[in-house]
Amino acid sequence: MIGVGVIGYGYWGPNLVRNFIETNGCRVVAVCDAKVERRALVEQRYPGVKGVSSWRDLVNDPAIDVVAISTPVSSHFELGMAALEAGKHVLVEKPMAMNVEQCSRMIDEAARRKLVLMVDHTFVYTPAVRKVRELVTSGSLGDIYYYDSVRVNLGIFQHDVNVIWDLAVHDLAIMDYVLPERPVAVSATGISHVPGGHENIGYLTMYFTSTIIAHVHVNWLAPVKVRRTLLGGSSKMIVFDDLEPSEKIKVYDRGITLNNHPQNVYELLVGYRSGDMWAPRLDTTEALSLEINHLIDCIEHGTHPETDGEAGLAVVRILENGTLSMRERGRPIELDSRVTERAGARQSL
Amino acid sequence: MIGVGVIGYGYWGPNLVRNFIETNGCRVVAVCDAKVERRALVEQRYPGVKGVSSWRDLVNDPAIDVVAISTPVSSHFELGMAALEAGKHVLVEKPMAMNVEQCSRMIDEAARRKLVLMVDHTFVYTPAVRKVRELVTSGSLGDIYYYDSVRVNLGIFQHDVNVIWDLAVHDLAIMDYVLPERPVAVSATGISHVPGGHENIGYLTMYFTSTIIAHVHVNWLAPVKVRRTLLGGSSKMIVFDDLEPSEKIKVYDRGITLNNHPQNVYELLVGYRSGDMWAPRLDTTEALSLEINHLIDCIEHGTHPETDGEAGLAVVRILENGTLSMRERGRPIELDSRVTERAGARQSL
Amino acid sequence: MIGVGVIGYGYWGPNLVRNFIETNGCRVVAVCDAKVERRALVEQRYPGVKGVSSWRDLVNDPAIDVVAISTPVSSHFELGMAALEAGKHVLVEKPMAMNVEQCSRMIDEAARRKLVLMVDHTFVYTPAVRKVRELVTSGSLGDIYYYDSVRVNLGIFQHDVNVIWDLAVHDLAIMDYVLPERPVAVSATGISHVPGGHENIGYLTMYFTSTIIAHVHVNWLAPVKVRRTLLGGSSKMIVFDDLEPSEKIKVYDRGITLNNHPQNVYELLVGYRSGDMWAPRLDTTEALSLEINHLIDCIEHGTHPETDGEAGLAVVRILENGTLSMRERGRPIELDSRVTERAGARQSL
Amino acid sequence: MIGVGVIGYGYWGPNLVRNFIETNGCRVVAVCDAKVERRALVEQRYPGVKGVSSWRDLVNDPAIDVVAISTPVSSHFELGMAALEAGKHVLVEKPMAMNVEQCSRMIDEAARRKLVLMVDHTFVYTPAVRKVRELVTSGSLGDIYYYDSVRVNLGIFQHDVNVIWDLAVHDLAIMDYVLPERPVAVSATGISHVPGGHENIGYLTMYFTSTIIAHVHVNWLAPVKVRRTLLGGSSKMIVFDDLEPSEKIKVYDRGITLNNHPQNVYELLVGYRSGDMWAPRLDTTEALSLEINHLIDCIEHGTHPETDGEAGLAVVRILENGTLSMRERGRPIELDSRVTERAGARQSL
Repeated sequence: MIGVGVIGYGYWGPNLVRNFIETNGCRVVAVCDAKVERRALVEQRYPGVKGVSSWRDLVNDPAIDVVAISTPVSSHFELGMAALEAGKHVLVEKPMAMNVEQCSRMIDEAARRKLVLMVDHTFVYTPAVRKVRELVTSGSLGDIYYYDSVRVNLGIFQHDVNVIWDLAVHDLAIMDYVLPERPVAVSATGISHVPGGHENIGYLTMYFTSTIIAHVHVNWLAPVKVRRTLLGGSSKMIVFDDLEPSEKIKVYDRGITLNNHPQNVYELLVGYRSGDMWAPRLDTTEALSLEINHLIDCIEHGTHPETDGEAGLAVVRILENGTLSMRERGRPIELDSRVTERAGARQSL
Repeated sequence: MIGVGVIGYGYWGPNLVRNFIETNGCRVVAVCDAKVERRALVEQRYPGVKGVSSWRDLVNDPAIDVVAISTPVSSHFELGMAALEAGKHVLVEKPMAMNVEQCSRMIDEAARRKLVLMVDHTFVYTPAVRKVRELVTSGSLGDIYYYDSVRVNLGIFQHDVNVIWDLAVHDLAIMDYVLPERPVAVSATGISHVPGGHENIGYLTMYFTSTIIAHVHVNWLAPVKVRRTLLGGSSKMIVFDDLEPSEKIKVYDRGITLNNHPQNVYELLVGYRSGDMWAPRLDTTEALSLEINHLIDCIEHGTHPETDGEAGLAVVRILENGTLSMRERGRPIELDSRVTERAGARQSL
Repeated sequence: MIGVGVIGYGYWGPNLVRNFIETNGCRVVAVCDAKVERRALVEQRYPGVKGVSSWRDLVNDPAIDVVAISTPVSSHFELGMAALEAGKHVLVEKPMAMNVEQCSRMIDEAARRKLVLMVDHTFVYTPAVRKVRELVTSGSLGDIYYYDSVRVNLGIFQHDVNVIWDLAVHDLAIMDYVLPERPVAVSATGISHVPGGHENIGYLTMYFTSTIIAHVHVNWLAPVKVRRTLLGGSSKMIVFDDLEPSEKIKVYDRGITLNNHPQNVYELLVGYRSGDMWAPRLDTTEALSLEINHLIDCIEHGTHPETDGEAGLAVVRILENGTLSMRERGRPIELDSRVTERAGARQSL
Repeated sequence: MIGVGVIGYGYWGPNLVRNFIETNGCRVVAVCDAKVERRALVEQRYPGVKGVSSWRDLVNDPAIDVVAISTPVSSHFELGMAALEAGKHVLVEKPMAMNVEQCSRMIDEAARRKLVLMVDHTFVYTPAVRKVRELVTSGSLGDIYYYDSVRVNLGIFQHDVNVIWDLAVHDLAIMDYVLPERPVAVSATGISHVPGGHENIGYLTMYFTSTIIAHVHVNWLAPVKVRRTLLGGSSKMIVFDDLEPSEKIKVYDRGITLNNHPQNVYELLVGYRSGDMWAPRLDTTEALSLEINHLIDCIEHGTHPETDGEAGLAVVRILENGTLSMRERGRPIELDSRVTERAGARQSL
């Protein structure tokens, strides 16, 4: 029975606790929150769970094997390193940390100690995103041409990070899971409408070695909520609308055909194809439940999770450089290519 | 009775001819097209109209007072200059010409000869866009924060220009009409998926002296058609969806309120406001009919049209520099600020 | 070359004339309209076509082989009979006539003279409805359970007929084409909100020998336009939304499964099935073009059209009895079963 | 502190318990369910609440002042009468009981003992429905012309009642709250596709003394979920779409104008009006929370609730007679007019 400790019982923490409680093979030992009323709430709901005020006590509790961190991103590095150094496996909220340097040090520490380090890229565990990956990797879409996402609403203006850290992080995590490559350059633009505040509108473009292009549009100041991703391929194209109650994924048999040996360069180069649309049935399993079962399985078998530290770092690298580009009105920035190969999920630690 | 000559009877020319025919105060004298079957078609439909094969004949026809040019953009400068030099007023398709230099020379020529030079920015004459401008200029929206537009579909890959010249041109024309300022810098990204072809996906960001930001997303390779613009202001926000059959414009009483003297910088800076939504009734007049009546009126009274050469040049400046930025992965480019003041529509020539 | 005469050049007549003009194998000889400006309009548009003021002259013109009637329904019988008696084939707008008696006499007259009698049930020739029929007749849907349609908008209040004659007629024509049976009873409800006017809201329920049920809701006084049909089967179910620009037909692999030998009558009787959704690509041919080609083909080969007099009569029988039921608050009325068998389309006259 | 007992902890019971727990002025004493695992669940979640197996014990518990009944409709009368006879106030699920006779006896019993008898017509307490009533009673809509509702999905086939008892009950409760009159006649049609089962498709038409007409379409066998109500008035019209996440209520300034003294009866009788659309902001309070606070308030002050026994009876009268009509293919049935006046909400018991 794996002992679980959760740090942070604010917006997301209650979901983590509820799902750990309902997962076989683990038990929640303690939940840490700085606010006394949050600790009281958790003890009222779950009489067997301790509410603790000091994260150091939780991290050093010998009954705890894995620490889940759902606190503001600026604290992830300190808490995560302390947990790893205390020999605990770690599940950390996204974004993984404030910069690539912090991510690298956490990855190294986990590797040295053979501990599981998992980043809570929840979307990766949704039936919709798993279906998208299945369609990409099976070759149904053909060559991937682009990933284009709009993620806007009237949202909470965060105090410690800008809108791309808050919203684009979801798309970067999805891209890291479904695309065959990682980006090699980023150009981002954006602006703040609150004096002294972080950017509340952001646009990221990412380039790849191939002709894939990716673009993410995020906005905390939109009058309507939109969550729509287009994924274009040479054979088929996907529209993923996360606000649709049932048909979240629509696959269109539409696109162009290229004539490589045209007689007349102008007329014959591009042909158009328009076929059926198909919306596959999706499972209704809660993503977080699937994710936590996967975490427990990785701990039990000593294997890498699908959303490991390398995935977390890949996302943070884009956020960090994207923010830099954004402050220089879109100046393109090359991304370090040394670690752009995909980490070996399900390999031994 | 103003004599009209139309050059180009392909996709858009028939709409021009039909609307000139139905407009009082003018008559269509001749239509020029290189293809014999198009000339036959126009003569069959309109027995009193001459089909001519030489645009020089049309331009020099003394019965013609105004020349409308609906040919590929690469020919706009040559045809437009010839018409102006022959003393004809000119209506030219958008984009006005291939670069700022060509636009400037056309503007100068028209000014010297006191001729009307109008660019066919059709959207400016739609009831929806005129309502948006009315809401902006009346102050209903408050300070403008952003203009964000998505204009994608599975579209014809043009041979002589990229997707921003083909699709973003609509948004740049709308922005030039509704926004209180013109942009001072542009960063654009995009890519071509056809070897040797022009970019078929493009993203433009435009910066202004104030904190307005504008972004346009265009794509010839999308599985679904989207025509949606968000216009955010400090008081209200607009969603303009051109594919809606009736409620094209929705005005949302939503946004944030800034507390300039917060006691606690983190908690009190931003407040949220959520009120009613309102969709004003729009006229159903055809935009092109309104536009051509305006052209005839400008010719009769010797005044500048709302979409004059300066408006056409402002749009081409962004297209030209955006394409440059796009080929350098988003490198920001400053726009010449000397001509950023709005031209005086309805002033004397 | 088949000579065509068209009576009525109001709302629909111009569409008929345009399509006859563009159809090979026939030529439009004359168009009759009581209003002089309509006759002038047709002659201006089509110099070779005569505008005539007397329908008797048109009907007796030896150059005319087929008469198309697009006048108010109250005149269909007189005009249709006169044309048949003059030995002309007839295409008549829907509804075919004011009552079953009139329809029967027209059918008999056409049969005696071996003339083609076609009713302009245009929807039957749309790619969407033809796809629906294909799905029904191929067995893809399984047993048909129901047909349910909503056809409402803010519409013109007709002077001579109520809303079911104006709008439900479309659904009755579609049902007659796609369903495997004809109804055996009707119950209808409705009301008029204009003193002395015809009913502007109507609801028709139709019963069949099997457990199919059909229902049509029509309304001239709705704030929004809806054109949506649900077609439920034991294997699959269709949503047909005629206002969708591209995916008009969606096929859902959803439904129930019946357990005929349940152990526990309450728990095991009904199971639920939820699978993929699929939107087949549809042709984009104009329905009226397909319909008129079919008419010419039937005349040339002496065969029954798909929408012959029997189809027209079947629709009118429901309208006539539905109106009767509506005036008695839904009193159910049995439909004469003698002629409920489907007419033999494409059989010899 | 009012003591609460809840009978039935299946689908809806947990929502009742949770809301009673969170409401000031009352405490949940006991919850009764026949299944031991449900009683265990309630005790695990709420340590201070007793799980009991006998509803008689609960009804006779002196610590309990009000009994909430969320069991199948066939048990409502027996449980409700027992609670009233034991001197308890009663909140009963909708539909109130199996027939008008049962409802009348419950009303009489509550009246004699001066107890609160409330029916859980939850929709009446939603912000959307309260806004609709406000618009109707303020006269904004003008004279009411019609109420038309579609409430369909792939739903659970109930064992003891047909689809109108399960789904149309919501519309009947809303109509009873928002319309100025109660119906005087009903005609219903429907069918069962499960041998021996209750009707799974139903259509109800209701007539009123004025020219209001109401129609409700319910279906357990639809491939898509629809929850849409049209409410037409002489001045404005409402579309209420309960599946819209934010703009549930849209008010259209559209309709007809009647010319009572036309010169030409055909041309001038009906004029058309098309104006703005407006979507009022709605509160986001949970309906059940508002409802339970209202119940506690009624008990404390000895007043009638808004959804009292008379409202429950009015709904059941239509369900009972609608089912009768449905089995006779729409035969119209007059409704007893003696009790069609609206009960005096908030009057003393």
